[in-house]
Amino acid sequence: MRRHPERGTYDRGPIDAILDEALICHVGFVVDGQPFVIPTIHARDGDLLYLHGSPASRMLRTLADGVDVCVTATLLDGIVLARSVYNHSMNYRSAVVLGRARRVDDRDEKLAGLERIVEHVVPGRTRDARPPNDKELKGTLLLALPLDEASAKVRSGPPSDFDDDLGLPIWAGVLPLQVVPGAAEADPGSVNGVPLPEYVARYRR
Amino acid sequence: MRRHPERGTYDRGPIDAILDEALICHVGFVVDGQPFVIPTIHARDGDLLYLHGSPASRMLRTLADGVDVCVTATLLDGIVLARSVYNHSMNYRSAVVLGRARRVDDRDEKLAGLERIVEHVVPGRTRDARPPNDKELKGTLLLALPLDEASAKVRSGPPSDFDDDLGLPIWAGVLPLQVVPGAAEADPGSVNGVPLPEYVARYRR
Repeated sequence: MRRHPERGTYDRGPIDAILDEALICHVGFVVDGQPFVIPTIHARDGDLLYLHGSPASRMLRTLADGVDVCVTATLLDGIVLARSVYNHSMNYRSAVVLGRARRVDDRDEKLAGLERIVEHVVPGRTRDARPPNDKELKGTLLLALPLDEASAKVRSGPPSDFDDDLGLPIWAGVLPLQVVPGAAEADPGSVNGVPLPEYVARYRR
Repeated sequence: MRRHPERGTYDRGPIDAILDEALICHVGFVVDGQPFVIPTIHARDGDLLYLHGSPASRMLRTLADGVDVCVTATLLDGIVLARSVYNHSMNYRSAVVLGRARRVDDRDEKLAGLERIVEHVVPGRTRDARPPNDKELKGTLLLALPLDEASAKVRSGPPSDFDDDLGLPIWAGVLPLQVVPGAAEADPGSVNGVPLPEYVARYRR
């Protein structure tokens, strides 16, 4: 946290808020010296971050070995247009978690962790969807990463131009960006008469 | 590309399209065996991916040494709600670039690369903004990563439920997601009478 330390924090409040709002994260791990960065879904449960996937996934298998991992979740809040090219920026919130994941084999914790992941993406969905059966549970690898070593970085607000540039007749400001849901598209093979659930119709992030 | 190989491609068409649409990427690099994943702005120019930042940034200084890097750009297109918890998914497009970056020191290439980055985020902006001066150029590190080793992965379309689940009275489908700009917020210190540029007012991604 050497660059722009004023933007950084180790407080769990903002860290948790970013992890909870971000739909996906990017997982970094190393295989034979080569770093890989893979997007995936996550969910926080208290002091743990859950990741899941196929037992055949290289990422999951590598992480299950307890290697060093970095998980980063980023929310893009806006484009910062300064008078100078140099001071252009982005408003964003990002959380970075370092550590080593452990494999979750306990059946109850695994069911609870997978439920957290579904509820993280679509709150309310586990009431409706068919729960995992034994075969599906075995076919899913769940990993838990402690949030012991986590930090957040946030940039917000208007551009920071140099004083000499403030009088230039150049528009400056922020263009906010938001993730917005469109109209839900029912699966063509849907059973007739199943209504669109409220948690989909009113989905907001 | 072992998991879901049908979703993967090494074709530059979709790879370039993803890199060009994504506003930010996540850069993975290794320091003393620990992977780091940091969000940053990028821009593609032909067969090169440009990254930039402060010469004081650990990420930029590490990458400038020519170490192995992984740059991943991800676009989230929708939430896939299946009948079963197990088949829930995301519609997404992601591009992964592996390689080693070189430092751009040639003044003309550096100016052109920085212009590409501004135009990548806000097309049209370089016509208006004050260009970098010599001090600012020296205060910016520009790196170029060749797109020699790149791949893309795409999931799209409706949920893929198991046949046995298709008759369940559970709503299934896709909730599309989009990045949408809000109303532009002029810098409070703006010079009077500078109109909002068209490229901001009509911004779309």
